[in-house]
Amino acid sequence: MKIVGQELKRVDAYGKVTGEAKYTADLEPRDILHGKVVHATIANGRVKSFDLTEAMKVPGVVKIVTCFDAPDCQFPTAGHPWSVESKHQDICDRRVLNERVRLYGDDIAAVVAENEVAAAQAARLIKVEYEEYEPIVTVEAAMAEGATPLHPDLRKDNVIVHSHMTMGDSDFTFDKGILAAREMYPGEELIAVEEEYDTPRISHCHIELPVSWAYVDTNGKVTVVCSTQIPHIVRRCTAQALGIPVGQVRIIKPYIGGGFGNKQDVLYEPLNAFLSMSVGGRPVRLEISREETISGTRTRHAIKGKCKGLMTKDGRILARKIDAFANNGAYASHGHAICANCGNVFKDLYRDELGCEVDCWTVYTSSPTAGAMRGYGIPQAVWFAECLTDDLADRIGMDPCEFRLKNCMEEGFVDPANGITFHSYGLKRCIEEGKSYIRWDEKWKQYRNQTGPVRKGVGMAIFCYKTGVHPISLETSSARMVLNQDGSMQLCMGATEIGQGADTVFSQMASETTGISFDKVYIVSTQDTDTTPFDTGAYASRQTYVSGMACKKCGEEFRGKILEYAAYMLNHDLTDLSKTVYADQVKEAAGRLREALGLGADEDVTAEMLDIVDSKVVVSGGDPVLFDVAVVADTAFYSLDRSVHITAEVTNHCKDNTFSSGCCFVEVEVDMPLGLVTVKDIVNVHDSGVLINPKTAAAQVHGGMSMGLGYGLSEELLVDEKTGKTLNNNLLDYKIPTAMDTPELNVRFIQLDDPTGPYGNKSLGEPPAIPVAPAIRNAILNATGVHMNMTPMTAQRLIAKFKEKGLI
Amino acid sequence: MKIVGQELKRVDAYGKVTGEAKYTADLEPRDILHGKVVHATIANGRVKSFDLTEAMKVPGVVKIVTCFDAPDCQFPTAGHPWSVESKHQDICDRRVLNERVRLYGDDIAAVVAENEVAAAQAARLIKVEYEEYEPIVTVEAAMAEGATPLHPDLRKDNVIVHSHMTMGDSDFTFDKGILAAREMYPGEELIAVEEEYDTPRISHCHIELPVSWAYVDTNGKVTVVCSTQIPHIVRRCTAQALGIPVGQVRIIKPYIGGGFGNKQDVLYEPLNAFLSMSVGGRPVRLEISREETISGTRTRHAIKGKCKGLMTKDGRILARKIDAFANNGAYASHGHAICANCGNVFKDLYRDELGCEVDCWTVYTSSPTAGAMRGYGIPQAVWFAECLTDDLADRIGMDPCEFRLKNCMEEGFVDPANGITFHSYGLKRCIEEGKSYIRWDEKWKQYRNQTGPVRKGVGMAIFCYKTGVHPISLETSSARMVLNQDGSMQLCMGATEIGQGADTVFSQMASETTGISFDKVYIVSTQDTDTTPFDTGAYASRQTYVSGMACKKCGEEFRGKILEYAAYMLNHDLTDLSKTVYADQVKEAAGRLREALGLGADEDVTAEMLDIVDSKVVVSGGDPVLFDVAVVADTAFYSLDRSVHITAEVTNHCKDNTFSSGCCFVEVEVDMPLGLVTVKDIVNVHDSGVLINPKTAAAQVHGGMSMGLGYGLSEELLVDEKTGKTLNNNLLDYKIPTAMDTPELNVRFIQLDDPTGPYGNKSLGEPPAIPVAPAIRNAILNATGVHMNMTPMTAQRLIAKFKEKGLI
Repeated sequence: MKIVGQELKRVDAYGKVTGEAKYTADLEPRDILHGKVVHATIANGRVKSFDLTEAMKVPGVVKIVTCFDAPDCQFPTAGHPWSVESKHQDICDRRVLNERVRLYGDDIAAVVAENEVAAAQAARLIKVEYEEYEPIVTVEAAMAEGATPLHPDLRKDNVIVHSHMTMGDSDFTFDKGILAAREMYPGEELIAVEEEYDTPRISHCHIELPVSWAYVDTNGKVTVVCSTQIPHIVRRCTAQALGIPVGQVRIIKPYIGGGFGNKQDVLYEPLNAFLSMSVGGRPVRLEISREETISGTRTRHAIKGKCKGLMTKDGRILARKIDAFANNGAYASHGHAICANCGNVFKDLYRDELGCEVDCWTVYTSSPTAGAMRGYGIPQAVWFAECLTDDLADRIGMDPCEFRLKNCMEEGFVDPANGITFHSYGLKRCIEEGKSYIRWDEKWKQYRNQTGPVRKGVGMAIFCYKTGVHPISLETSSARMVLNQDGSMQLCMGATEIGQGADTVFSQMASETTGISFDKVYIVSTQDTDTTPFDTGAYASRQTYVSGMACKKCGEEFRGKILEYAAYMLNHDLTDLSKTVYADQVKEAAGRLREALGLGADEDVTAEMLDIVDSKVVVSGGDPVLFDVAVVADTAFYSLDRSVHITAEVTNHCKDNTFSSGCCFVEVEVDMPLGLVTVKDIVNVHDSGVLINPKTAAAQVHGGMSMGLGYGLSEELLVDEKTGKTLNNNLLDYKIPTAMDTPELNVRFIQLDDPTGPYGNKSLGEPPAIPVAPAIRNAILNATGVHMNMTPMTAQRLIAKFKEKGLI
Repeated sequence: MKIVGQELKRVDAYGKVTGEAKYTADLEPRDILHGKVVHATIANGRVKSFDLTEAMKVPGVVKIVTCFDAPDCQFPTAGHPWSVESKHQDICDRRVLNERVRLYGDDIAAVVAENEVAAAQAARLIKVEYEEYEPIVTVEAAMAEGATPLHPDLRKDNVIVHSHMTMGDSDFTFDKGILAAREMYPGEELIAVEEEYDTPRISHCHIELPVSWAYVDTNGKVTVVCSTQIPHIVRRCTAQALGIPVGQVRIIKPYIGGGFGNKQDVLYEPLNAFLSMSVGGRPVRLEISREETISGTRTRHAIKGKCKGLMTKDGRILARKIDAFANNGAYASHGHAICANCGNVFKDLYRDELGCEVDCWTVYTSSPTAGAMRGYGIPQAVWFAECLTDDLADRIGMDPCEFRLKNCMEEGFVDPANGITFHSYGLKRCIEEGKSYIRWDEKWKQYRNQTGPVRKGVGMAIFCYKTGVHPISLETSSARMVLNQDGSMQLCMGATEIGQGADTVFSQMASETTGISFDKVYIVSTQDTDTTPFDTGAYASRQTYVSGMACKKCGEEFRGKILEYAAYMLNHDLTDLSKTVYADQVKEAAGRLREALGLGADEDVTAEMLDIVDSKVVVSGGDPVLFDVAVVADTAFYSLDRSVHITAEVTNHCKDNTFSSGCCFVEVEVDMPLGLVTVKDIVNVHDSGVLINPKTAAAQVHGGMSMGLGYGLSEELLVDEKTGKTLNNNLLDYKIPTAMDTPELNVRFIQLDDPTGPYGNKSLGEPPAIPVAPAIRNAILNATGVHMNMTPMTAQRLIAKFKEKGLI
């Protein structure tokens, strides 16, 4: 491969650094109206009435709409493809404005005004009368006997779904495993560990807030320009939310400043569309503040994992069990998918000799809604699995690396629950690479027996991550290519650039497959559902794999069409095309080609004899070079003999999947009296198959590691259990790592050629964020012997634990 | 046909009436910068230097660029397809800002400022030093011996092209015709007429001024949102003007408020792009005022026609000749195409028994540039031909209708110069219809012998108009169709809606051919060269014929793909697709289909057995109805078995052409002392083949007739012959007909099925404007016996002529 695998500069680098790149807000029209959402000030209850009198007096207010004016349409917000099988359809459990209040800050009304100040002022002056119920903020409260259901029309209790899965026999249970183990290994000492591990609710903290602007064009067709990862899904859900046909909705996605899964939900686009429709189609903008974003959009699920493990004394895992309880907040969003994904990966990470038992509950509570966030349940799964694994290894004093190498899943494994296969699996090589980097063998033992208040430790964690969502859900993607007059091409992907570098790798793929030079591939970064090929969007680390294959297939067809026209020119150079400015050049090239291939005068040139290399049409094999693709393009456009606009459009319905894997190794220094953990060294080692662009891949890993550090050490969104109010919905009180908090981030790759990836590649987007927190946790264990079961491992939690253990 | 031919409401009617429809200026971004062009205050010369000192002091000025900063790239502005044959390429004779000044108001610099006032103020404060030459405003001056050439690098004199054409022998001349006639008809009295007819320079007066806004996106890619008829051509020419690859330019065309050919030139889009590039890619708007538009964009050519005609005494035309001199102004724009077109139609309108001699000159002058305007030389051709025809008939006292019916071209005629064929030709039926409407036979004779100061008259004129530009230039067009989840479709045409109703008729065509209901065809009205199929644009009344055929071919392919998937579903209803929500419905439909067609269990359903009617999949022939297209669409999108995004994209390279024709009949009242002509009754009768939508067709004719009234009675753009300054570049002094000036406009159609039209249709856009002025002129002749040889026939001109003839 010539272009795939090269460390090319991002195609959007210059535009983004200079500010030339246009984001949603950069192109808002002049004289746009400003929307402002009115949020409930109770966490559970019902709006009885509004008094708009004072609010309507604010100069500049154009319109106030309330939940009593909103379309009576329930809609789903999850960024999932729709399903023609009803049991796979997402849960429709909210309206654009809700009369039934299910979280503190629920959307109950909205103001449209000539300016932002008037909108905010009017929003504050709206008086609301509520019927108030007891907030149900925790999973325990929500699952308690007699708890009031939050969505009584959909569920008689608050459990969205409870699923039960096993590895091994379908009726396998952990308790049966213990009995079986005793029978299989009579007299042998078996060791069981039972722990409860806990993960926090956290916020995505994408740099660009959810922002959109909407207007109505001819015949009621509503357009929403918005910062989303999933334009085509936003289109469908907006139509559902407004009760209009999907053909009457248009979504445009410019560059976006990150999403991390929060913009894989349909957030405020339907409301924004409704606001414009409420003011005669005038453009209305709606920007959600940081405070609103943190408490009112989506969060990563706080999942509690009650785990059990059973092993032999020499460290073979016999059985594991997890009961995972996910706090989903007020609305279903992605439903049970995330907690189920968590359970699946917990199960797939190790070979349990006898079996694995998994129970997952996803529960409605009157608190901020949880949805997709980078990792989609796997950061929690890996927290549970990798805490448990180290705790198991620790019980027998075994080197945790050795323990993992002994028990981890093998290449070729097929998950019987869903058929996903480890087509390629470089995990063991990743572990060896990480060990070597951090000098594990020397340090781990050395750090086991330290004394004093400041100690060092090394720790590690592994992960696996599937690539896309097949066969759990649909994987479908299209690409379109258009030839320009100058021999350059437009590449139109339904798949979306969300800051992760998708545009760059798709451009590389297109160049690789078509033979058109990389600098002549103009990717159309903006998706516009009116014209962009369909794709479900940026999530599940699916795009290079699923959409990448669409790009490859389309490129093959496109290249074929160019060569077909080139062959036509080479066959006609003496007749119809003889008057063009290219006639001599083509005639001369035809001569060289005929000579090179020894073609007889009566034999036609065919497309199969030709190839494209570096934007030149060449004879297959590369020699001789005939003419520039621009000669074909210009002729195809403007020939009076045969004008054809060369384009190709292809759907890829992906019916495969494969696992990425990797690990994180860290070395920490723990200052016990200060409760301070300092990451002294860290490396992520990834098997993501063949890398399309090692430079952008490394950047992707850097970002993920940074998020992992926050997940491990500082990030937690706090909700008051009594009132349901978010306590730290701002970036002063909610702590993401700054540059000052971040050590040098090291990245290594093991590049295996995955047989199912379009270019041997597999997922990379989400994985980097997954293993960092448990690796830190396990390093603290190595340093201090203390088992931290709850992340983030803040000073408060560490000091409490160190005190409990008598270390300080 | 079910949908084609129906009087459906325009698809953009509601949006345009309510203001929902968004035009270029409606979507300008906030904080946009304002551009202002600095125009030369001499008509011929050269800029020596600028003094920007005072201008730069104006608060808010961001940047001033001058002709010395502009890219040194000559570019063409004509809305023609490019050609790969160099002799067909347009003339590149200007830059975005010109150092060499060739007309009063030439673009020499531009200001970019934070607001309009600052931009205008700074523009006024720029001091310019010129080297000044004598203005050459008239054709006579420009062609005079020793006249300074305006483009010495391109032409040694000011004649852009002189072309000589004949009908009959290739060496036919009018003088040879006289000699031949004398030989053929010895002793017979032959009558010759020689007259000079003159046409004015006029302005398009589209309601929306030329407006655009531009910004640079990532990697220097420049986007221009603009009011143009020809987005893809603007893209190419902007790239040429800036010296950048075409792939780096993006043009977006929203709704536009008319163009009439003025926006078939690339006007200020390249300059606007350059201005944004000059300020780091920030959005910059550029709106050209009415005054600038009238004097600085394009005009209809003032053409002088020196005509001769020779006939027998019984009214058979033997020979004609025209020498046509077109004043092209400062830049080539469309080059010689318009004057040549004028000569062609003069020739094609009648059968000259011996031959016709045509000489055409297109001449540079230092005056406003002439370009395309509704009719493209034919209003002038028909003015010349139809003045001459009435003058010939008048010489022998013959009924002008009878004279025309005797001499006009016949169906099946092939123009030997270009091969264009009268495939269908309803002219004679149009004349009969018009005669009957106006009660010609009774009135024409009656009005011949009136006395008194106020007299009545009837007059008429005929025309023919070819459909598109094949084979003179390239005719190529693409269409793309996309199926939506709800069974509706997006129709993406490269062809453009410019107010003429294109969106509506394309939607009808798509509905007709695909079977998808008209209300489920969502046309994507905005062209965006990044994604829109290629089409050369709205001109030459080509779109329903050329682009319409692309729409038809695309619709056939699209329908085929939907039916292929429907057949797949009908064959698989019992197996793979059995879990979908549509399974029972499809299974039941398959049963009915198999019963209806008597299909055996082992026989597959094929697409050919199926059809789409009213958005329902039916068995070919219409019965039984199986299921909604939405069932196919939703399944095709979301099937876990086979997901495919159904789209189709097709190029139509049109290699045919045909003539539309028609006539105008008017009845006028002439108040000779007041010089006042009042149109009492008027009818246009058109043969435009089968009408796609009679209601919008009639509206198109109304607009054309109104322009024809202005051309006949009031419109003339005056340029001072000494200074080259435009004297009436505003709508107070330049007189277009208002509603008060406009009589009831009557329209009749003769619908012949043209064998080459996609639905039997042929051109209609430009023709209505053509015959009105000469019909009025001939009615004045009928009323008063006065031959008006110059239009517009203003009070001044009429009174002068009536005085000359002793009538007042």
